[in-house]
Amino acid sequence: MRKQMHLGSLSHGVGSHVAGWRMPGAETEKENFDLVARAVRTAERGKFDFVFFADAVNTGADAAPMFVVRFEPLTLLGALSVVTDRIGLVATVSTTYSEPYNVARALASLDHLSQGRIGWNVVTGSSPDAAANFSKDKHPPHEERYAMAQEYLEVVKGLWDSWEDSALVADKQTGQFIDTGKLHVLNHVGRYYRVAGPLNASRPPQGYPVIFQAGASDRGLELAGSTAEVVFATQSFQEEAVAFAGKLRDCAEAAGRARDSIRILLGVSPIVGDTEREARDIISQLGAFVDPVTSMRVLSDRVGIDLARYDIDGPLPDLPPSTMMQGHARVLQSVARRYNMTIRQLRDYAAVSSGHRVLIGTPAQVADDLEAWFARGACDGFAIMTPYSPQPFERFVDQVVPILVERELFRKEYSGKTLRDHLGLERPPHPTPRSPV
Amino acid sequence: MRKQMHLGSLSHGVGSHVAGWRMPGAETEKENFDLVARAVRTAERGKFDFVFFADAVNTGADAAPMFVVRFEPLTLLGALSVVTDRIGLVATVSTTYSEPYNVARALASLDHLSQGRIGWNVVTGSSPDAAANFSKDKHPPHEERYAMAQEYLEVVKGLWDSWEDSALVADKQTGQFIDTGKLHVLNHVGRYYRVAGPLNASRPPQGYPVIFQAGASDRGLELAGSTAEVVFATQSFQEEAVAFAGKLRDCAEAAGRARDSIRILLGVSPIVGDTEREARDIISQLGAFVDPVTSMRVLSDRVGIDLARYDIDGPLPDLPPSTMMQGHARVLQSVARRYNMTIRQLRDYAAVSSGHRVLIGTPAQVADDLEAWFARGACDGFAIMTPYSPQPFERFVDQVVPILVERELFRKEYSGKTLRDHLGLERPPHPTPRSPV
Repeated sequence: MRKQMHLGSLSHGVGSHVAGWRMPGAETEKENFDLVARAVRTAERGKFDFVFFADAVNTGADAAPMFVVRFEPLTLLGALSVVTDRIGLVATVSTTYSEPYNVARALASLDHLSQGRIGWNVVTGSSPDAAANFSKDKHPPHEERYAMAQEYLEVVKGLWDSWEDSALVADKQTGQFIDTGKLHVLNHVGRYYRVAGPLNASRPPQGYPVIFQAGASDRGLELAGSTAEVVFATQSFQEEAVAFAGKLRDCAEAAGRARDSIRILLGVSPIVGDTEREARDIISQLGAFVDPVTSMRVLSDRVGIDLARYDIDGPLPDLPPSTMMQGHARVLQSVARRYNMTIRQLRDYAAVSSGHRVLIGTPAQVADDLEAWFARGACDGFAIMTPYSPQPFERFVDQVVPILVERELFRKEYSGKTLRDHLGLERPPHPTPRSPV
Repeated sequence: MRKQMHLGSLSHGVGSHVAGWRMPGAETEKENFDLVARAVRTAERGKFDFVFFADAVNTGADAAPMFVVRFEPLTLLGALSVVTDRIGLVATVSTTYSEPYNVARALASLDHLSQGRIGWNVVTGSSPDAAANFSKDKHPPHEERYAMAQEYLEVVKGLWDSWEDSALVADKQTGQFIDTGKLHVLNHVGRYYRVAGPLNASRPPQGYPVIFQAGASDRGLELAGSTAEVVFATQSFQEEAVAFAGKLRDCAEAAGRARDSIRILLGVSPIVGDTEREARDIISQLGAFVDPVTSMRVLSDRVGIDLARYDIDGPLPDLPPSTMMQGHARVLQSVARRYNMTIRQLRDYAAVSSGHRVLIGTPAQVADDLEAWFARGACDGFAIMTPYSPQPFERFVDQVVPILVERELFRKEYSGKTLRDHLGLERPPHPTPRSPV
């Protein structure tokens, strides 16, 4: 069988576009479970590997609508585990502002509730504002956060291994409830954590819930290389994506893992139309909801020159070579040339993309793009984001996914039951037992 | 209408009896959601006010089956919110080993998921072993744990009030997503916590999820008086229960609250038979699964004399006055006399009760007992525990509850939608706004 891509959905709630909620038919409610459940069922109908929930532990009056309020991901996954059957469910949890025992428990509990469909997106938290919500003087610096995360993961996995897979016996005849020889303490004593264990949850159905990460710094890549099973990345050029994948697989190898032990998914935002023109109109329609001065300033900052001085309906001027050192400028110039965009159109594109590639076109055009990147070895699949909910994602599932299935690039039906099954990842065996309790 | 009692269920999982799981037909699995959901639906069929999940953040090889492993309560409530419509869902969360921001979020999220059916049983943690799972040198002493809990509750409520009830506008015409004048920071700086806020969740449907507590110490009563809305208690004698209720309501009054602002529920374990004889046989049957030497030693310790020296099928000897100072001895002597029990029968009773009253008899006898205590003003209702699952609880719901309904002592149908509605508790209004963000 042809190698197939993996697809994850980040499309739910009010969407990634700051004003997407204002589109006709767009949802405006963030804490309405029925709406979230509908989006997740759409992804399951499309046989997606998983749905993913971003998170943060702070907010503010200036936050974009998608960040203002949201369901707490672990409780949300509990609810979603009941209204879905096969799709993986991935929550973001920060290692900086939580206790490993509590998080190990919650994730083990969810893996039991969902019968093996949970993933954990490990983040160290990028907003320094979070510290003020957790009785901390300051957000720990980048290096320290990653050192904490590395140790935290070790503790959590150790807790998941507290119980061997067959430790719970419950033999009514003999009266033996647990096989105490299969229960292990952890007694972890590290630089940041001291955790005795055992956990009061039996080993998760998947052994460990699947570990997701998105850090792109050198330290992030190092952590991902040693621990991640799925990595989200943003890449704008195929060759750079291929290079990134190679570098990440080198990190895995350096950590003693197989090169193919990580699934690399690139974030993309597909805007599907019956024609390319219709797709581009959707972007313009979104752009019209954003304050034009602000959005032009954002674009100007990104390309490195003040575009307000140019004809908004004219072409993007040649950017000075100096600004091309900035990734954003290079990407936006490339997009403007590819689609022959005016400054106004590029401004509206930038508001949709938030750094990710926006795939504009007919269902076949979008499928062609995904196929090309996948075939080139740029990634193992894609994380699908959409600017508002539910239409753009429903269109992707109903119009693009069938083409991928037809081309045998994506599954027609789920063949496995767990998230590890979907991703083609091994269930980690229980390690050599440590000391019994 | 006649004043009606409140009923909560603590009956799910493998039950409170150490060997109840060995009974014919008893469940043995603790992390099987279908079994938990079935028990909760049974309680909802009985129109119970709520189901309640006890918790702890440690375990060990010597733990009783009910404590060995369990679903993490917050994730479990997420799942249960979807498979139930009306019943309240109450989770235990320790204030000693969690962050107020995380817990405020999770509970707010659950209150949104369940549309206003969440309660929080606030505990400070009774097991010193927990500290070793949270990088702590020691379990904080009793007084400090309560001081922490008091401040913690203040923080959590403050976070729930971050957003006024109508702060989320989402007006597509004007483009206003939030009314920033209705968003408030907390900037709490206390002895134990510093939490800025705002929370990234809008105000819970109930204003605040309902606050449950069970502490019976003087400090526990003080905390309950100032903050609890439902209190669980163990009382063995009606007059003492009346006195306890009076004392607790005094505490509420001293804290500036109405005397009737707390619902007091007494823990009872009903063993229902077609005859009293059949009910007593169930207790003997349970007793036969427990190691007789251990259980006799437990009973001897409780009554204060070595009962192994007496005829096991003879009556309980008169207990020396000195031991009667111990609550356990007095209670057990009273039970032995009331039911004319042999030592063996009392031993088996003690294994079922774990301190709570065991109500032994026909459905009418059990209903009579509940009615008598309720009518006497000993409590506002009962927390129903059963030694194993699911039979004893199903029998209570199908045979005892209809008698209570018939006597107009309990609701025939839910009249409200939220847990506060069921309990007859006011929704807390948003306090006078503090400073805007």
